[in-house]
Amino acid sequence: MMHTLPELLERIAEYAGEQSFPVNPRQLYEPCDYILTLGGKRLRPATLLMGYELFRDSDTLAEALPAAWAVELFHNFSLMHDDIMDAAPLRRGQPTVHTRWNTTTGILSGDVMLIYAYQFLSHAATPDMVPALLETFNRVAIGVCEGQQMDVDFETRDNVTIPEYLRMIELKTAVLLGGALEMGALCAGAHQDDAQHLYHFGRLAGTAFQIQDDLLDTYGDPAKFGKQEGGDILQNKKTLLVLKTLEVASEADCAELNQLMETGSEHPDAKIAAVRNLFDRNNIPTHIEAAKQQYQEEAFRHLDAVQVPEERKTVVRSFMEALLGREY
Amino acid sequence: MMHTLPELLERIAEYAGEQSFPVNPRQLYEPCDYILTLGGKRLRPATLLMGYELFRDSDTLAEALPAAWAVELFHNFSLMHDDIMDAAPLRRGQPTVHTRWNTTTGILSGDVMLIYAYQFLSHAATPDMVPALLETFNRVAIGVCEGQQMDVDFETRDNVTIPEYLRMIELKTAVLLGGALEMGALCAGAHQDDAQHLYHFGRLAGTAFQIQDDLLDTYGDPAKFGKQEGGDILQNKKTLLVLKTLEVASEADCAELNQLMETGSEHPDAKIAAVRNLFDRNNIPTHIEAAKQQYQEEAFRHLDAVQVPEERKTVVRSFMEALLGREY
Repeated sequence: MMHTLPELLERIAEYAGEQSFPVNPRQLYEPCDYILTLGGKRLRPATLLMGYELFRDSDTLAEALPAAWAVELFHNFSLMHDDIMDAAPLRRGQPTVHTRWNTTTGILSGDVMLIYAYQFLSHAATPDMVPALLETFNRVAIGVCEGQQMDVDFETRDNVTIPEYLRMIELKTAVLLGGALEMGALCAGAHQDDAQHLYHFGRLAGTAFQIQDDLLDTYGDPAKFGKQEGGDILQNKKTLLVLKTLEVASEADCAELNQLMETGSEHPDAKIAAVRNLFDRNNIPTHIEAAKQQYQEEAFRHLDAVQVPEERKTVVRSFMEALLGREY
Repeated sequence: MMHTLPELLERIAEYAGEQSFPVNPRQLYEPCDYILTLGGKRLRPATLLMGYELFRDSDTLAEALPAAWAVELFHNFSLMHDDIMDAAPLRRGQPTVHTRWNTTTGILSGDVMLIYAYQFLSHAATPDMVPALLETFNRVAIGVCEGQQMDVDFETRDNVTIPEYLRMIELKTAVLLGGALEMGALCAGAHQDDAQHLYHFGRLAGTAFQIQDDLLDTYGDPAKFGKQEGGDILQNKKTLLVLKTLEVASEADCAELNQLMETGSEHPDAKIAAVRNLFDRNNIPTHIEAAKQQYQEEAFRHLDAVQVPEERKTVVRSFMEALLGREY
């Protein structure tokens, strides 16, 4: 028997409820508890458990829970520090840690959360699995830092290429999904080849998801998508849509886009409409959709290559399909 | 044969020279190289190697170098983040990372250095030693964060007790020295009891060193000590000398000290003289010296308890004696 996604999330919630940070120093640990209860969807630890259950029966799931929790702690550490760097006042509608407390707290509580991630990792599975888990975790964590640095750099650069942008989203968000699957496989004692295929499955599917995210920000139904309509356009973000336009459009269209991105957002609806119009007449949604499709297909080829019976792959396959299959 | 301290430092310098961070993203890794070349004394990694050479012959020293370098990277990560929290413009006479670059860089480069510390740790010694090393490293790293938080908290508290202060300096700086010795012992495959005795030796000696540091700031020869004379007094820092005075002095003396600590430093020499006078007439140096002595004696009892021939202890013993034996 394998667990469904809701069942896995329940197991994670149960496990999380049994863990607690020390009480003191309060100022250090309260923000850790706070950010963990802001209602993250916990898809990364769930993905790790799916990776595990590809290879092992679900009654041994407890062996993978510490590593799953390590991934969730790492993700929240990165959110805490990213929010400082982005000067973000809110996360999921609540004050960010450095806003509710201060920057010192945001830095130090983030640091200790990262160290606790390693603490959970070191208690994952059996001691002989720790070195391999640590290796994967470090590789992914370094990637996430490099991706964040690239994202920061891009803000002040006007010559970002599409391959650079794709590499940035891959590092900043997708490698953690791949790493979670790989670590789940490692906890289960899977063969190295299978663990690698799962890493690439998560990495490529995660990149496809981020490409889709760019598209949905401009073309998605805000009610379903849950973000402000055309938010990227109003913030003049150099998304994949913008980069692709600058690559394929006429000189006149490029000039118009550059000009639009230098104007303020006093008339948001008009600005969104003008930029969308530019995207549409250059077939940008079709280009981006094709790029997403390419990543997605390559991703699922890696899942296909994992040497376990097809029925074991049902949960992780339909989870990733649901993640990638939203309509726009 | 065992290595002397200068020989150990040379081995560390040689090893460090062989390591390098990736070139890109430049903004992420340049600050890591920068802080490592500011001329730290590298006493922590040297201490780890001394812990190793208590148990193993020096021709196997290479096995302990990755762990030693992990400790140095961790220390520099903590300096980078502490400098942001303390808004420190200079470190060893050079601009701090967040001053030379910016806060975002200070946070992110610090984060990636911490992760690289774990990367080196995971390549330390043989794979079966990794879980124990990780356990010690995490315990110490969490302690350092807690100590830093206590230090931050103390700035805005006026009821800090002496035990709390001692616990703060122990966590913030001494446990890393203890952890380095313990990790050196673990790399050498030493018995758990010996590793624990070394941890406590470093922890207690490190605390004695910090107590001495408070004393030297007010009573040391600035030429030898290398800091501004009476710096703590001019910054109104609640050092151990202040806390002890408030504990043992008359109400009138306490009131005078509190008043002095609320005044500015327009007349630095007069202020230093007045505070010193208060300390002297309450025998504070004697009290503090006794506290230091107590930690020191307990520390060396732990070194005595380590089950190796006395001659193997020569290097680490004389190193720690030199650290603690400066005149004042």
